[in-house]
Amino acid sequence: MSDFEHLLVTRDGDTVTITMNRPARRNSLSEDHLAELLRAFQQTAATDATGVILAANGPVFSAGHDFGDVAARDLTGVRDLLRLCTDLMQTIETVPQVVVARVHALATAAGCQLVASCDLAVAAESAGFALPGGKGGWFCHTPAVPVARSIGRKRLMEMALTGDVVDAPTALDWGLVNRVVPDAELDAAVAELLARATKGSRASKALGKQTLHAQLGRPETDAYTIAVEVMAAASQLAGAKEGMAAFLEKRHPKWPD
Amino acid sequence: MSDFEHLLVTRDGDTVTITMNRPARRNSLSEDHLAELLRAFQQTAATDATGVILAANGPVFSAGHDFGDVAARDLTGVRDLLRLCTDLMQTIETVPQVVVARVHALATAAGCQLVASCDLAVAAESAGFALPGGKGGWFCHTPAVPVARSIGRKRLMEMALTGDVVDAPTALDWGLVNRVVPDAELDAAVAELLARATKGSRASKALGKQTLHAQLGRPETDAYTIAVEVMAAASQLAGAKEGMAAFLEKRHPKWPD
Amino acid sequence: MSDFEHLLVTRDGDTVTITMNRPARRNSLSEDHLAELLRAFQQTAATDATGVILAANGPVFSAGHDFGDVAARDLTGVRDLLRLCTDLMQTIETVPQVVVARVHALATAAGCQLVASCDLAVAAESAGFALPGGKGGWFCHTPAVPVARSIGRKRLMEMALTGDVVDAPTALDWGLVNRVVPDAELDAAVAELLARATKGSRASKALGKQTLHAQLGRPETDAYTIAVEVMAAASQLAGAKEGMAAFLEKRHPKWPD
Repeated sequence: MSDFEHLLVTRDGDTVTITMNRPARRNSLSEDHLAELLRAFQQTAATDATGVILAANGPVFSAGHDFGDVAARDLTGVRDLLRLCTDLMQTIETVPQVVVARVHALATAAGCQLVASCDLAVAAESAGFALPGGKGGWFCHTPAVPVARSIGRKRLMEMALTGDVVDAPTALDWGLVNRVVPDAELDAAVAELLARATKGSRASKALGKQTLHAQLGRPETDAYTIAVEVMAAASQLAGAKEGMAAFLEKRHPKWPD
Repeated sequence: MSDFEHLLVTRDGDTVTITMNRPARRNSLSEDHLAELLRAFQQTAATDATGVILAANGPVFSAGHDFGDVAARDLTGVRDLLRLCTDLMQTIETVPQVVVARVHALATAAGCQLVASCDLAVAAESAGFALPGGKGGWFCHTPAVPVARSIGRKRLMEMALTGDVVDAPTALDWGLVNRVVPDAELDAAVAELLARATKGSRASKALGKQTLHAQLGRPETDAYTIAVEVMAAASQLAGAKEGMAAFLEKRHPKWPD
Repeated sequence: MSDFEHLLVTRDGDTVTITMNRPARRNSLSEDHLAELLRAFQQTAATDATGVILAANGPVFSAGHDFGDVAARDLTGVRDLLRLCTDLMQTIETVPQVVVARVHALATAAGCQLVASCDLAVAAESAGFALPGGKGGWFCHTPAVPVARSIGRKRLMEMALTGDVVDAPTALDWGLVNRVVPDAELDAAVAELLARATKGSRASKALGKQTLHAQLGRPETDAYTIAVEVMAAASQLAGAKEGMAAFLEKRHPKWPD
């Protein structure tokens, strides 16, 4: 891995952990911070790791965009920043690894968008989620995109229009996260969920994850058009062949990749 | 405000309350009633109010279309009526104000559609929701459109196919409303939610609300295309500039509009 | 009804019950089994029945595709199989009858897809649901299509990526099924829900159900375009005319079909 100024990137077995490490700036997403996150996910995508944990150090998971980096920009400058941010969010969805957010504290605005963009999310009981642009000046237009695709419409409207914090149990009830655990059990819960989500053939699962994101949010007939073609092609991959053979021969599979 | 025959329209501070006032007709949505509601929302849109409460007088919130106004129409006549109704529902979504439904009693068919079309909804414990076209003759095709975008598919199917009433706590669990409170606390709960949802810059929030409705229900990449452009433009609004400046200068913002 | 090798098809009053009857093969969906299910639904569609129960015999509701029927196929052969399977799922959505899944046991992969494709679903407490392709080799791309349209995104990701079984109460909480009842009460609960869902005019309800599936998953404006045209046309059907007349004349309707 390259060196990063704002991140810690470590690998343990098949898992890469990307930790936002600007605690004094509440892990706000300056252009440099966004660019490093994008580079870290792109570099991880090229490895044989099977899982990624997106974590953060400090009192806040991420406070979203860094207003110090936004306030002086003109429209073109802000658009460039938002395109970089969107590129990061869509890269998280399309890397071949399963990505789990480890949310230990408050995740707001584009920080909440990060959580919604990860495949899975585990939150500590003391975590919280908000789209605070609703409180005031710069509405959370882009953070609302993946949040709207995770929770119901009335709940999205309440988060986006009030800007108020949703606590972790409510986020679980609404489907924004997969698990809420006592703070002390956060690492164990993340590891347990990631272990279950990264079983099997890496190539088959990568294709699976990418296709899920591709078919979501489309009319069902369009989604079937995508999924049938991918699933037919996927049946010819070594992992699928081995999985079926092992099942038919009543033995454990030996995943080819 | 103009005079209305079927509505009461009042303003208190920044909030306009539009009250359906045909209790003897169960606030059924005749052509005249729909046209008045549309006009009331259009007129409110042109004011500097920040919030709208949609309420109703009488034993029923709204019973939906007035069969006395439908039964004699031919296909063209019914289509005209449904287009007027749809225009009302989409106007509620696009007025610059935050719109909260105050549901004190039963909301059925296009009455339930009204609740689903409002940005937020607070229900009394004794309220109920139904798509009763499923019981019999004229299926609730258009009411099901916004209801389907608020609750899950199996639950939508059950409401639409059975026509049976869903009580308020179930509606809350399914995400059709934001709050359920004892009947005596309904006004206070509506006011509290609306106060939280109308903070900040009116222009920024109006753009926020309108963009939410525009990006919902689209594939995520399409939604990002919309949201990135709007959010870049929105960064140049006076409200956004002031919000960021106030944050960076650690002072309370003074919203420009 | 024609004879079937893998199914039992019976009619009781207005209800047709299609029972998968390959218990020794865990009701896995071989090409023959899929073709029989498709034929059974197509034949039922042509009858005047108002409801269909999709049930299964044996220790498993359905284990999904039959790997013995997949493993030797090339890409074209698998695509043909998946197109047949998709044709079945979309036929379930478009037959004029209300279709209820009676899930007494485990429903996995395309077996879980069957449950998600039915209009309504009632599960026994001991039932379970899984997309086990996530465990290994052949990812559940097409089963995830209707499941993704029934439950939230993070929950879909967890089911699809882990492949683990979701128990019946969790499936109810997530909205994948409409009811969970003690195993001994399954038939009664299915009958009760189907009776409520098949009231009224058969022609109006068939159009209603088909239009629901057509408008789901589209941007709201597109859904309104569909629903307004259908609902205007539907107002001229005999069932709608009778429903409105009966309401206005305060008498019970006599449904014409």
